[in-house]
Amino acid sequence: MMPSAAFARRRFPFDAPGYKTRSPAAMRNLTEDNMTDAVIAGIGEATDARLKEIMVRLVGHLHDFVREVELTEEEWLAGIRFLTAVGQKCDDRRQEFILLSDVLGVSILMDAINNRKPAGATESSVLGPFYREGAEEMAAGANLSKAQGGEPCIVSGRVTGPGGTPIAGALLDVWQTAPNGLYETQDPQQPDFNLRGKLRTDTAGRYEFHTVKPVTYPIPDDGPAGRLLGALGRHSYRPAHIHFIVSAPGYVPVTTQIFTEGDPYLDSDAVFGVKSRLVARYVRHETAADAVERGVTAPFHTVDYDFELVAEG
Amino acid sequence: MMPSAAFARRRFPFDAPGYKTRSPAAMRNLTEDNMTDAVIAGIGEATDARLKEIMVRLVGHLHDFVREVELTEEEWLAGIRFLTAVGQKCDDRRQEFILLSDVLGVSILMDAINNRKPAGATESSVLGPFYREGAEEMAAGANLSKAQGGEPCIVSGRVTGPGGTPIAGALLDVWQTAPNGLYETQDPQQPDFNLRGKLRTDTAGRYEFHTVKPVTYPIPDDGPAGRLLGALGRHSYRPAHIHFIVSAPGYVPVTTQIFTEGDPYLDSDAVFGVKSRLVARYVRHETAADAVERGVTAPFHTVDYDFELVAEG
Repeated sequence: MMPSAAFARRRFPFDAPGYKTRSPAAMRNLTEDNMTDAVIAGIGEATDARLKEIMVRLVGHLHDFVREVELTEEEWLAGIRFLTAVGQKCDDRRQEFILLSDVLGVSILMDAINNRKPAGATESSVLGPFYREGAEEMAAGANLSKAQGGEPCIVSGRVTGPGGTPIAGALLDVWQTAPNGLYETQDPQQPDFNLRGKLRTDTAGRYEFHTVKPVTYPIPDDGPAGRLLGALGRHSYRPAHIHFIVSAPGYVPVTTQIFTEGDPYLDSDAVFGVKSRLVARYVRHETAADAVERGVTAPFHTVDYDFELVAEG
Repeated sequence: MMPSAAFARRRFPFDAPGYKTRSPAAMRNLTEDNMTDAVIAGIGEATDARLKEIMVRLVGHLHDFVREVELTEEEWLAGIRFLTAVGQKCDDRRQEFILLSDVLGVSILMDAINNRKPAGATESSVLGPFYREGAEEMAAGANLSKAQGGEPCIVSGRVTGPGGTPIAGALLDVWQTAPNGLYETQDPQQPDFNLRGKLRTDTAGRYEFHTVKPVTYPIPDDGPAGRLLGALGRHSYRPAHIHFIVSAPGYVPVTTQIFTEGDPYLDSDAVFGVKSRLVARYVRHETAADAVERGVTAPFHTVDYDFELVAEG
C-alpha cells in the first residue's frame, strides 16, 4: 500500500542527523518542546522496526494532542478514568474498546485502509464486536432463525469473481440480530448460535437462506462508549443489516454488511459503516399463496444480493 | 496559557465555511480521506465547547495516526487487546493507565504544561500512581518510617515565597518507598501509611523529619505497561526520590519529587521526571557520636532542600 500524503509530508524524528548519537543527558530537564524527542530517543535500537514506527507516530500524536488542547490535570484524570472504565467493561461477551474504536470511526477507517477494492468488487465494512466463530454449515435454503418472532425473510443471490464469473463452493458466514435488536451472545433468552450460520454457493454460484428481517438497533450504550456518544449529542443506532464474511479459494475474502433500503439511519450510522452499494432492496410479499409457494408465512420479504470477490495475488 | 505553535498552525475542520450546514448524506460512503471530517461533523452543536475541542483534536490525531502507519487489522486488534489488558490490570491499589501515561511521557508533558513556573520557583514533577490521601500530620522531627531497616535519613529545609521570604505553617505532604523499593500500598508486609506523613513549617519556614534513605526502584513491570517497556528495550527504573506536595495559603501548591545526587538513573528515568534543580545532595555521617547527637544510629544521612512557592493570583 502507498503511504498517505500526510505520512509523506511528515519527518520522522529518528530520520534526523545525529538521532543515534543523542546523549542520554537529554533525558533530564525535559520541557514541553523536547519531551517528545526524548521519549522517542528512549526507544532501544534493537526494537522491532514496525513497532518502533508505530510507537514513534503514536507518541508524536499523543503529545501533540496534549500540547494542542493544553490538557489540564482534571481532564487528564477524567481520560484515565474513562479508559479504565472502558477496559473494565470488557468481558468474554463484550469488547468495549472495539465499540469505542467503532464510534470514533477508527474501525471503519482501518477497514478502508486495509481493504482497498477495485471498482465493481463488493466493498467491505467493519466486522463489529459480535462476530462468533464456529457457526454451523447449513444446507441451501436452511433457516438461520431458531426462535419465534420476526418477519420471515428469504435472502438469495450469487457470489462471483470479477466480470460476473460464478464461484461454486464459496462460503458465506452470516450473522445478525434477532427482532429485539440483540445478537444471541448479548441475550440469554436466545438459543445458542441463533441467527448465525454458514452457507455454500452451488455450481451456479448461487446461495439462499431463510432468516428474519433484520432490524434497526442501538449499539450497547450502557457503558463508557455510550456515555461518550451521549455527551457528544450522538444517537447510538445502526441501520438494519446482515453481516457476511464471503470467502472462496483463490479469492480475497470480504467482511461486509448488507443494509436495508429505506432505513432511517442509513445516513447517520453510529459506526459510520454504510456504503450505497451495500444497501439492498427488501421486497415485501403479502399473500398467503406466495408464502406457501416459498415455504414461509405471510407477510414475508425477499432480498437478492450479489457479492463480487477480487481474485488473489 | 498560550496555545502552542502547533495549535496555532492547525485549522479546525469546524472553522471551515459550511461546517454547520454539512449534509447528513456525508455520513454515507465515507473514505480514508473524508472519514475524519464526518466523525467531527457528527458532534452535536449543543456539545460542551471544551469537550468538542478535545474530541476534534483527539479524533484528528487518532485518525492521522492510523493513516500514517497504515495500521493493519492484526495491529489494531493487538492494540485493542493491549488497552483492554491495561484497563483490567487496574484496581483499588494499581492504576496501569497512569503508569502507561507515565512511561510514554504524557504525564510529565501534561505536568509541564500545567505548571509553568517563574525562574527560582521549585519545579514540579509527576504525582505518580502511589499518592494516598489522609496521611497523618506529624510533629517536626517525627519519623515517617514505622518499620525496621534502611539507612536513617534526616530531611530538613525551608519553604519560602519568592525572594526567600519564609512561609510559616506551610504543609508538606510526603511519601516514598521503603528500602525494598515498594510503597506501602504495594506491599502487605508494611504497616499502613508507612513512609507517608504531613509536616508543617515553623515560624522561620523550617521543616524537618526523619525517614529512611530513598532507593532506586523499578516501576511495576509485571503488567502491560512493563511489557511495552520491554518491547521498546527500555528499563523500568526510577532514580531514588521522595515525593512532596508543598502548599500554603496564598501560594500555588507544588507537586514535586526530590532526587538523590549520584543515582545511576537520573538521566534515564523511566517516567522522564528528573530536573537538575530537584536533585539534592545526601551527606553521609559515619560516626556514632554524630548519630547520638541527632537521635539516630550510624551510618545516617542528612539532606537539606528548600522549596520556593509562587504567590497566587
